Amino acid sequence: MVTMSAPTNIAVIKYWGKADTHYNTPINSSLSVTLDQTELRAITTVAVSQKFTKDRFWLNGVEEDELLHSPRFRACLEGVQKLAQDHTDADGNLIYTKDDWKHLHLHISSYNTFPTAAGLASSAAGYAALVAALCQLYHAVETFPGEFSTIARQGSGSACRSLYGGIVAWRQGTPEQQWRDSKAEPVLTDWPELRALLLVVSDSKKDTSSTTGMQTSVQTSPLLQYRAQHIVPARMQAMEQACHARDFGTFAQLTMQDSNQFHATCLDTYPPIFYMNDISRQIVRIVTVYNAWAGELRAAYTFDAGPNAVIYCLEQHQQHLAALLCHYFPIPEGTLSCLDTSSVVLEESLLQACNETGRIPRMGDVQTMYATKPGPGPLVVTDICNLDPETGLNCYDPPSK
Amino acid sequence: MVTMSAPTNIAVIKYWGKADTHYNTPINSSLSVTLDQTELRAITTVAVSQKFTKDRFWLNGVEEDELLHSPRFRACLEGVQKLAQDHTDADGNLIYTKDDWKHLHLHISSYNTFPTAAGLASSAAGYAALVAALCQLYHAVETFPGEFSTIARQGSGSACRSLYGGIVAWRQGTPEQQWRDSKAEPVLTDWPELRALLLVVSDSKKDTSSTTGMQTSVQTSPLLQYRAQHIVPARMQAMEQACHARDFGTFAQLTMQDSNQFHATCLDTYPPIFYMNDISRQIVRIVTVYNAWAGELRAAYTFDAGPNAVIYCLEQHQQHLAALLCHYFPIPEGTLSCLDTSSVVLEESLLQACNETGRIPRMGDVQTMYATKPGPGPLVVTDICNLDPETGLNCYDPPSK
Repeated sequence: MVTMSAPTNIAVIKYWGKADTHYNTPINSSLSVTLDQTELRAITTVAVSQKFTKDRFWLNGVEEDELLHSPRFRACLEGVQKLAQDHTDADGNLIYTKDDWKHLHLHISSYNTFPTAAGLASSAAGYAALVAALCQLYHAVETFPGEFSTIARQGSGSACRSLYGGIVAWRQGTPEQQWRDSKAEPVLTDWPELRALLLVVSDSKKDTSSTTGMQTSVQTSPLLQYRAQHIVPARMQAMEQACHARDFGTFAQLTMQDSNQFHATCLDTYPPIFYMNDISRQIVRIVTVYNAWAGELRAAYTFDAGPNAVIYCLEQHQQHLAALLCHYFPIPEGTLSCLDTSSVVLEESLLQACNETGRIPRMGDVQTMYATKPGPGPLVVTDICNLDPETGLNCYDPPSK
Repeated sequence: MVTMSAPTNIAVIKYWGKADTHYNTPINSSLSVTLDQTELRAITTVAVSQKFTKDRFWLNGVEEDELLHSPRFRACLEGVQKLAQDHTDADGNLIYTKDDWKHLHLHISSYNTFPTAAGLASSAAGYAALVAALCQLYHAVETFPGEFSTIARQGSGSACRSLYGGIVAWRQGTPEQQWRDSKAEPVLTDWPELRALLLVVSDSKKDTSSTTGMQTSVQTSPLLQYRAQHIVPARMQAMEQACHARDFGTFAQLTMQDSNQFHATCLDTYPPIFYMNDISRQIVRIVTVYNAWAGELRAAYTFDAGPNAVIYCLEQHQQHLAALLCHYFPIPEGTLSCLDTSSVVLEESLLQACNETGRIPRMGDVQTMYATKPGPGPLVVTDICNLDPETGLNCYDPPSK
């Protein structure tokens, strides 16, 4: 029995559009920041036993039979099983041979520590945790670096990036290599000053699921094709350079431009897809004014396939930025984790400039704010177990809302 | 003394981005529908007199000195003066030679019959009326077809299209011809079934002026460049074909795609420009569902540089469509011009489908709705005069709000 946790990741060069739906590969490479797991993570326990009579899967405390038969889940399970190794006990006695695994029934229980509805890459964290836990359970060994990420990719594209910490690239790969080269690659693990604020915008219902949205975009948006082929390659290069140089200004500009362009291709889709709403746009305006006021790029917004904002910044500005955002998007007291903004006095000139955007502070437009930072890839968890060690049944009970 | 009125026009292939700021020419051709003048028009009176001691300009009842010195106004005035002809009275006596005009002081009074703030192409109608009235006053004669439109273009780009009725193209033109070929050209004057609904969305303040917005987009949006060079030319061709064939389905699809793409390039601008808001997006969703429900494209939304929607349709569907829109975006009674929707019973299946967009009917989200159709270019007005025939002073008094 193994329990592992995996982080979410928030892309700064966006993935949108599949090149190959079977292999679940992208039409362009992407780059993301893996977020610290303190608050946001998926925790998955997997177990095999000769006593188990069938495979079972509990997601957020609820048994989900269909998931077990989904092609995505099968691809992950069978992908890891192919790399499974013999398992010996502490004394070196063979317990299971590598061929045993696929005949042993599996129990899985997984949950997210953050609202699944919030659109904060829960499927990325979820599939990364699943693959990481299965790899651990089956003693799987990669035949090339990043192979596990090619398996996680087949569960959920962006999950591949959650298998590494820090800043991670997902190389688009090639059909010539049967997409084995469509894998995650760590780009930078040490940028200790990097920080992020996550703003969960109230109306979090997605207009269109990512899978459906991507498909429609690929089919109907001429701008998406152009972006993937002619804009992203240069942006990836520039972004990696900026990361290596810890050049936050360039990182910020590329991040904002790429978020804008991703949403532009959604809008160019027919019928159009809207993920950002008026609150998202007001956040963009406040960040834009903040940077203009500071005379440098101190904050970089990015929006995934939903209205929620993730704002990257450096440690030295995080508290000030959080105070500014809490001023314009007030949240219930105590909702902002790990960061005290009460002592921050916001400059009159800054408030004046922000007021000109037309934003009027209103409670409820942002539900929750998380203050976070880059963090490591999947971790073994020893203090939590979602399956009862005796019965092998789910023992995770989701908190009532 | 001459009074002329000019219509607005609403583009279906959008103009966004200047190729030459001096000549005010576009980076791509565009195509628009000139709207009927019954409700929306600019009415301009121009007069010369040897008694006038200086040029004077009243806009919406207020004297505007600065306008007279703006490069845009000068370009229009001098453009028309170059084409001026001798003026003889009914008996053939010469009153003014063509060279006299530029020495005679000019009084101008112009107003719009619709809110200037609503972003309904008021500057297009305004400059078209100005140029049309000046041409009439100075007895100007074109040296090539469309020359007047090259003059109006220098006042406001889209004004050139308001010099013709029906469906009008603005050819982007070439620097080789010193942009004399950047002119309007009528494409189709008879599509009697074509109709439009104009929805004025409450929050009509523009985020960014068109001039500034275009400039930033040209400088920062790689998607705009690609659109202008590689997408619009084919779309113009397809759109003109659809118009000639009165193929509303193709017209509708291209209209919606092009509106989406224009706003996509605004979003791809850095910092991004937002013209549509959540209400605009809800209108898009309702129209999308309406077409899906009908099983054919019956309605085509388009948004200019503002949140207001213009929805094209055919006569046979206008009343039904208006009733649907009035249901979801209720307006104060009597605000919808010339169209009675009270007898329309909306199908349960349609309402169910629309409800799924999440739109909840709410008064005030749309301020006014106009029901309109294509109409003619500038017209001589005989029953209105904005200048006192005795004094030559403005006599237009704007209605109090």
